[in-house]
Amino acid sequence: MSSKPPYVRPMDIRNGRVDMNHGAGGRASAQLIEEIFLKAFDNEFLRQGNDGATLPTPPELLQGGRLVMATDAHVVSPIFFPGGDLGCLAVHGTINDVAMLGARPLYLSASFILEEGYPLAELQRIAESMGDAAREAGVPIVTGDTKVVEKGKGDGVFISTTGLGVVAAGVHIGGDQARAGDVVLVSGTLGEHGVAVLSKRESLDFETAILSDTAALHTLVADVLAALPPGSVRVLRDPTRGGLATTLNEIARQSGVGMMLMEASIPLLPQVEAACELLGLDPLYIANEGKLIMVCDAQAAESALACMRAHPLGQAACQIGTVHDDPHHFVQMQTRLGGRRVVDWLSGEQLPRIC
Amino acid sequence: MSSKPPYVRPMDIRNGRVDMNHGAGGRASAQLIEEIFLKAFDNEFLRQGNDGATLPTPPELLQGGRLVMATDAHVVSPIFFPGGDLGCLAVHGTINDVAMLGARPLYLSASFILEEGYPLAELQRIAESMGDAAREAGVPIVTGDTKVVEKGKGDGVFISTTGLGVVAAGVHIGGDQARAGDVVLVSGTLGEHGVAVLSKRESLDFETAILSDTAALHTLVADVLAALPPGSVRVLRDPTRGGLATTLNEIARQSGVGMMLMEASIPLLPQVEAACELLGLDPLYIANEGKLIMVCDAQAAESALACMRAHPLGQAACQIGTVHDDPHHFVQMQTRLGGRRVVDWLSGEQLPRIC
Repeated sequence: MSSKPPYVRPMDIRNGRVDMNHGAGGRASAQLIEEIFLKAFDNEFLRQGNDGATLPTPPELLQGGRLVMATDAHVVSPIFFPGGDLGCLAVHGTINDVAMLGARPLYLSASFILEEGYPLAELQRIAESMGDAAREAGVPIVTGDTKVVEKGKGDGVFISTTGLGVVAAGVHIGGDQARAGDVVLVSGTLGEHGVAVLSKRESLDFETAILSDTAALHTLVADVLAALPPGSVRVLRDPTRGGLATTLNEIARQSGVGMMLMEASIPLLPQVEAACELLGLDPLYIANEGKLIMVCDAQAAESALACMRAHPLGQAACQIGTVHDDPHHFVQMQTRLGGRRVVDWLSGEQLPRIC
Repeated sequence: MSSKPPYVRPMDIRNGRVDMNHGAGGRASAQLIEEIFLKAFDNEFLRQGNDGATLPTPPELLQGGRLVMATDAHVVSPIFFPGGDLGCLAVHGTINDVAMLGARPLYLSASFILEEGYPLAELQRIAESMGDAAREAGVPIVTGDTKVVEKGKGDGVFISTTGLGVVAAGVHIGGDQARAGDVVLVSGTLGEHGVAVLSKRESLDFETAILSDTAALHTLVADVLAALPPGSVRVLRDPTRGGLATTLNEIARQSGVGMMLMEASIPLLPQVEAACELLGLDPLYIANEGKLIMVCDAQAAESALACMRAHPLGQAACQIGTVHDDPHHFVQMQTRLGGRRVVDWLSGEQLPRIC
């Protein structure tokens, strides 16, 4: 935006609250956008000041690459939780969805649905957290929209983010690419995000703090793709809602294969294991926000693990299972006690509004 | 998605309601997505079944074009209104934001925030309306996300859509391109959308039904750009929230110019004028969802008007004002009575949740 603003007084961010005028598209909307969102996200594209952003063509597209688009609505409750908040989660979650197709995330859009009465100071905290996460990831928020709903018709803040990325020619990663003989890897310990959100929601105090693992995984993915022979990574997916169990069932179904997990190999922090036992939760169904599942060629497994372990977000990477033929597309698990059980889809609700 | 579904019984769409399980990411989520959204939006990209879509590179990008990305949250209340509904509005609104940069809209993403207890049959109606609008516009919904919030923490359905498009090399349309000597055109009559939503909300019965003008304007834009000399279209913008007055003030500010409107030239349906008088509303501030404002070279005005009038969505196109130098960036209006007044930004709220 150029030239002087159409309002005189700065907003009272410290004591002010979102009101219906902030969503009406006039002077108050412009001020909210400029004083909170533009400040927090500042970049050349957003400063174009139009109802959308014009973006340069990424070089991969000139060399046979393809576009990737992913979107996520974020309604996590509470908005601030140990290890993160709605703002950084909205950035990480969508960057990860783009990265899970083997793509380089380039741009984000963000749309906000605000509830009348929400404190402006908290909105600013969320926006700053988003801006920091976007800058740290190198993926700018280039365009956005803000709406306001009446008190009691929303819940503080909801954020929808959409990511745009580009996948290089020859990379074909997707849920339908797993095949018998492949192996199943995870990039680290499971369950922290879900347990962290729940502990805050229920005001639980664990002896050891459990922090959400929320993080952007695109550089981890880029490292692995650069290190491995082309085609050896079949599937990447972040086990968010529904957890590891549901995500593996999705992949098994899409690829038409079965899987066998080794319970003893699934990495869990002891405090997460203890919290799950206490709360009666199965960590295999708990949401993660900074972990990925990789199905890859068995021959590439050692390199993939070495590569992940060399990245700060993949230090606890390990192999947890194998892929085999199974007309029923079952995900099964060899238990610690030597038995075998089916690991089913999440059927009911384990934790609502976890992301 | 391939192979058989992970559930046995079909959903009871006729009598069922959204429950928290539909947002948990497990079996119920998969079923909701497949039986309502995939059915309504069906296309090859969505059927990839990953957490994002891989998309072919549009040819314009190989010839010096640029990407365009726009996003909108849609919270209109009531969800169904004369002439449209939340679903088609969410498609049209975002297509229009992309088109207003002179771009060809290619793909949409959609994220849904559903309130627990919302009737599945109504959700299906909304999804079908979205799917129809997307197909009619030729812009498929390629990826999406669905979350559910507890009863009382939302308001039925909120939809955020993001549009991806491509603008040809040499096209530079934006709010900062207006210059003194240009003219201001509109593609048709103003105020129908806002009045239609309000009439439904307040259960008003006008003698003549007023329907929302919700429509996708990208083919109208394409026609005009093809017909006019390169560079002669400076600004395109759809006057949604805040209406004509606020949109022109935004443009005047971005471009650092003033504008003079002729009140007698501003096209209004008589029933909209009557309704506004009855309700004490100023039609210049009322949202439109199927109209555009164009600032263009005065020499191209006649061709632009002829081109718009030849399109079904531009039959009432006309010139409403001129652009001139003004250090204050005022939008002024020559009234019907021969006076002159400043047309200011929308200051407070005229109509909440209009889009």
